[in-house]
Amino acid sequence: MIVILKSGASDQQIDHVIERIEALGLQAHLSRGTFRTIVGVIGDESKVSEDSLRSIPGIAQVIPVLPPYKLASLEAHPQRSVVDVSGVLVGGGNLGMIAGPCSVEEPERMDRLAKSARESGANLFRGGAYKPRTSPYAFQGLGVEGLKILKEAGHRYGLPVVTEVTDPRNVEIVSEYADMLQVGARNMQNFVLLTEVGKSSRPVLLKRGMSATIQDLLMSAEYILSQGNPNVVLCERGIKSFDPSTRNLFDVAAVPVLAGLTHLPVIVDPSHATGRPDLIPACALAGLAAGADGVHIEIHDEPEVAKSDGPQALLPEQYQELAGRMRKMAELLGKTISPPNPEVAA
Amino acid sequence: MIVILKSGASDQQIDHVIERIEALGLQAHLSRGTFRTIVGVIGDESKVSEDSLRSIPGIAQVIPVLPPYKLASLEAHPQRSVVDVSGVLVGGGNLGMIAGPCSVEEPERMDRLAKSARESGANLFRGGAYKPRTSPYAFQGLGVEGLKILKEAGHRYGLPVVTEVTDPRNVEIVSEYADMLQVGARNMQNFVLLTEVGKSSRPVLLKRGMSATIQDLLMSAEYILSQGNPNVVLCERGIKSFDPSTRNLFDVAAVPVLAGLTHLPVIVDPSHATGRPDLIPACALAGLAAGADGVHIEIHDEPEVAKSDGPQALLPEQYQELAGRMRKMAELLGKTISPPNPEVAA
Amino acid sequence: MIVILKSGASDQQIDHVIERIEALGLQAHLSRGTFRTIVGVIGDESKVSEDSLRSIPGIAQVIPVLPPYKLASLEAHPQRSVVDVSGVLVGGGNLGMIAGPCSVEEPERMDRLAKSARESGANLFRGGAYKPRTSPYAFQGLGVEGLKILKEAGHRYGLPVVTEVTDPRNVEIVSEYADMLQVGARNMQNFVLLTEVGKSSRPVLLKRGMSATIQDLLMSAEYILSQGNPNVVLCERGIKSFDPSTRNLFDVAAVPVLAGLTHLPVIVDPSHATGRPDLIPACALAGLAAGADGVHIEIHDEPEVAKSDGPQALLPEQYQELAGRMRKMAELLGKTISPPNPEVAA
Amino acid sequence: MIVILKSGASDQQIDHVIERIEALGLQAHLSRGTFRTIVGVIGDESKVSEDSLRSIPGIAQVIPVLPPYKLASLEAHPQRSVVDVSGVLVGGGNLGMIAGPCSVEEPERMDRLAKSARESGANLFRGGAYKPRTSPYAFQGLGVEGLKILKEAGHRYGLPVVTEVTDPRNVEIVSEYADMLQVGARNMQNFVLLTEVGKSSRPVLLKRGMSATIQDLLMSAEYILSQGNPNVVLCERGIKSFDPSTRNLFDVAAVPVLAGLTHLPVIVDPSHATGRPDLIPACALAGLAAGADGVHIEIHDEPEVAKSDGPQALLPEQYQELAGRMRKMAELLGKTISPPNPEVAA
Repeated sequence: MIVILKSGASDQQIDHVIERIEALGLQAHLSRGTFRTIVGVIGDESKVSEDSLRSIPGIAQVIPVLPPYKLASLEAHPQRSVVDVSGVLVGGGNLGMIAGPCSVEEPERMDRLAKSARESGANLFRGGAYKPRTSPYAFQGLGVEGLKILKEAGHRYGLPVVTEVTDPRNVEIVSEYADMLQVGARNMQNFVLLTEVGKSSRPVLLKRGMSATIQDLLMSAEYILSQGNPNVVLCERGIKSFDPSTRNLFDVAAVPVLAGLTHLPVIVDPSHATGRPDLIPACALAGLAAGADGVHIEIHDEPEVAKSDGPQALLPEQYQELAGRMRKMAELLGKTISPPNPEVAA
Repeated sequence: MIVILKSGASDQQIDHVIERIEALGLQAHLSRGTFRTIVGVIGDESKVSEDSLRSIPGIAQVIPVLPPYKLASLEAHPQRSVVDVSGVLVGGGNLGMIAGPCSVEEPERMDRLAKSARESGANLFRGGAYKPRTSPYAFQGLGVEGLKILKEAGHRYGLPVVTEVTDPRNVEIVSEYADMLQVGARNMQNFVLLTEVGKSSRPVLLKRGMSATIQDLLMSAEYILSQGNPNVVLCERGIKSFDPSTRNLFDVAAVPVLAGLTHLPVIVDPSHATGRPDLIPACALAGLAAGADGVHIEIHDEPEVAKSDGPQALLPEQYQELAGRMRKMAELLGKTISPPNPEVAA
Repeated sequence: MIVILKSGASDQQIDHVIERIEALGLQAHLSRGTFRTIVGVIGDESKVSEDSLRSIPGIAQVIPVLPPYKLASLEAHPQRSVVDVSGVLVGGGNLGMIAGPCSVEEPERMDRLAKSARESGANLFRGGAYKPRTSPYAFQGLGVEGLKILKEAGHRYGLPVVTEVTDPRNVEIVSEYADMLQVGARNMQNFVLLTEVGKSSRPVLLKRGMSATIQDLLMSAEYILSQGNPNVVLCERGIKSFDPSTRNLFDVAAVPVLAGLTHLPVIVDPSHATGRPDLIPACALAGLAAGADGVHIEIHDEPEVAKSDGPQALLPEQYQELAGRMRKMAELLGKTISPPNPEVAA
Repeated sequence: MIVILKSGASDQQIDHVIERIEALGLQAHLSRGTFRTIVGVIGDESKVSEDSLRSIPGIAQVIPVLPPYKLASLEAHPQRSVVDVSGVLVGGGNLGMIAGPCSVEEPERMDRLAKSARESGANLFRGGAYKPRTSPYAFQGLGVEGLKILKEAGHRYGLPVVTEVTDPRNVEIVSEYADMLQVGARNMQNFVLLTEVGKSSRPVLLKRGMSATIQDLLMSAEYILSQGNPNVVLCERGIKSFDPSTRNLFDVAAVPVLAGLTHLPVIVDPSHATGRPDLIPACALAGLAAGADGVHIEIHDEPEVAKSDGPQALLPEQYQELAGRMRKMAELLGKTISPPNPEVAA
């Protein structure tokens, strides 16, 4: 940690900073420049509270040198993680291809969609049974009934299933049915929920919040990891911006930025990032080209009657066409698409 | 609702749109322009799903005419709400002056801070017992013990207390001690939590999320209102922006924007909006000048040892000085600062 | 300047950094921490190129300690500047009250508007003769003819005039007629234009760009100051954000942030910041409460026929009402509204 | 154009709107809904001023139906443009591969860089002779001398040259030496400059401003096109965002968004978009995968001594490696890299 004092900081203030640092068993290294005095903290900076130093009068800036996440850090864990979702691998050269409708709907439709997802080449099936909707008047999901429908449909075709959990009280029941728990963008800093999914044995798909920095996202992953659950897959799904052309702004550079900071796999979700089916193929391919470990795409066979997010869904035939292009891209990049796992049906 | 068709939309597509609208018992009003065909929906547009129309091929845009919130809307409820927090009024010309430390700390300190807040002119006392921290390694709050300390300190000086609730499982216990429940910025779209506080009989302080639009904020208020809790106070506390000068960007214009859309009171929180004590006075006064129904400010007598957010706290003497200036501003604006309520001590 | 090396930086890389620093006649102060090595640069850091250090392999971060602007800096010039616009003072407790239409229009209207601005209490009159329009098909301004009309109307009522200059080739001609040159938001980083107005003897109103950080704004002011023109007034007029409620986002905290960094006066422009007449009064008062040295407001007596920006103009009677409230606010804050200068008519 | 009236708009206000529309020779189509009255404008909406309608009391919203750009619009010009830069094609399946240093430097270095760019597979060579620098104290470019050096180096290897023009007074001289004129991000709304390059016969590379919406960018292109210069290539180079991980935020979705709106070619600039050499390869490949018509990359053989932007330059060997990967990506996508043009040397 580096402490920069204000111009004109008194000797007393400088001494006070040094005392505080030394009181914590660390060393303070003083450097008097021509215009500013700087104090370097030598030792384990996680012992020092940045806020506490910042509160001392006479201090202009406190600059941490180490990232505040440890378990998520690539520097501390240089081996890239491969997350096993009931037999389907994500990360380390293996691509997770997640497809499915926004909400879980009636069993027949879910069966049709799972079948077509499988045939197109997806290896994970998604659908929301608990929906975080901006309007209290909108469809809120089928709940436990939806979990059952989802699992049956996905597993029938060998596809482990991913579904969102929104309530800490539901983590247990959702874990019974789901192969992977999703924490949605709006809950990325719902620390109570993160703590609960961190106690689950299910892998977690953690979506980036719409205004989360890369560091915020990694701190939220750290919450899950610190509870003992090492299986976290990060997901870039668009952030807030000023341009109304797309629902969110797809931050494709987040993929290589994260790859440089963490060992956790990173996938992209062009459906939510853009909110426009016509842009999904370009953004899906861009995500893979940028190094993503998978692609999450919403599909629906009758968008007009979808329970939610119909306008951003690809039709099964559109997904099939895109999946073919993604396979060729994967080949070019030397990545493998992990096969579905027929065993989950058992 | 207005539906704009794409240039070159077929008659069949137009007919399909009209059928869909009429099937819902509404009227469709067709208008063929030189370049585009437009369909107006006549009747109660809340019956039509915007998403469902948007999913129809050939449709370029769907423009809702009415706001998606009803209970929060000023148009539907032209009388401005006054929220009664255990005898202290917020809204309708009454200013809520909330002060207190970020986290609840030891009883002696809380007593000192409540006493000084009261003497300076605050009418509500705050402190967090459950802290949503970005790091899993940071202080997470004193829990129930903190709730007790907070209530005792505040009520001793006639100040109803405000505290954050972060877990739907805790709404009941927090409601036992708190006079007002705070939903924090990071939980503004935690719809499970909103639903729970909507069932509580305590008034709610709903903070705007860092990437929430004004409409998002009002939709979150609608969640609470739709559960039967009419006592919601909104709080502008800064949104994300590109300038690193301040922790967040204080959106002072949100105050008059909200005043034009909703009957709910709106207060400002310059502590979180700026993260810098040197900017708090200017922004607090600006908030009042813009028409805010109150000001939320964090104070601490020893920021260096604060359990959280020390660097952004005002010292009690700084708060006292600012409170004096706020009183004069209130006078100029013809606003009243509701007196504390000695009855809460009983 | 502080140089933080990457974990695992070689001794050779560290030596290279030190050599580079010493070659410039500065001292390097090495501090080997437990996890990172840090090099402090002692001496005049403006001699070192930040970019050049950043390009050295093994370097993680380069952190400048001093601001990159000098002439604009409050630290270097602790005396606040008062800018004299043909006899009307802005800064140091004196408020510049700028009013007028977006574009200069016909002489009779300009006369009416100048008269009413003067009667309401404005002390500077504005109007654009060269308009930077986003559409090439929109009204581009009356040019030199407009300059004449503006000057005549304003000076007749003792109001020095402010007008925008958009072309470096026009700085001279505009300076003949205008008492103050405005550099618009879209030209804030038009360094060619900044250099030209820096050579003019007229004071400059420099508007903040829609995506300019506070530091960007001060660097643009530095361009003007470094050419020898010390008379710069900064103007906050809204920045880009994700919320569509207002045209731009009014960054009222920029006022105290700037006051802590620069000696230059800072005014606010709620007309462009919000784009909505109904929000202008609240934001104008908020700006003053935050410490602004003046307020820039667009007025028009027939917004429907205005050549530009009609929908955001206040009517003269609305301005008059607001001006009365601003005067009371000024009194409360102990600020003076500099009187118009009848001498300009001569 | 669609006009939505406020709830409670009077008949008189509605009549006034209709009169205004009809006075312009257009038809007004009235639609009285249950909650709002809507007026559709039938005929050429470019005749109506949106601002003028918006200024009428009683109007809530004015929604244009057609884009405000015509010459740039894909709808009006469904044939995609191919821009010929002195024999090198950009657009319509042809990729422009632009490489070169940020600033033009000494002739020997420029020769080395042009040679290596050519050998790696670039087909256009870049370098700035007039540099828009945020600091007045930074290197401002070699001027005309730089133009000569750039042209000689590029043309020697058959590479047409691209260079920035920042001053309307320099368009002519820059056009003498450059094969393509660049308008930089900070000048994207310098309408005076756009008008001048619109009069030039040289093709123009128009970079997106850091806070420009897609529509803003197209309106700036419209300025150039409307002056008679049809040869505009758009460039996405990153926009402002809240995450400090990268210098700007690379908006890769802008590529397919633009492809849906305009016939003009679109390239990407990952050097400026990210500001980090480690991210350039991933973002360059992502840009191509998203459908870009070319990639602009800064290279330098000694970043430490570069006159500007050294830290974001790729080394020639890094560019060579990336160029190989970009060629394979181009093949996969069925795109052609236009060969250099040895004729320019003549």
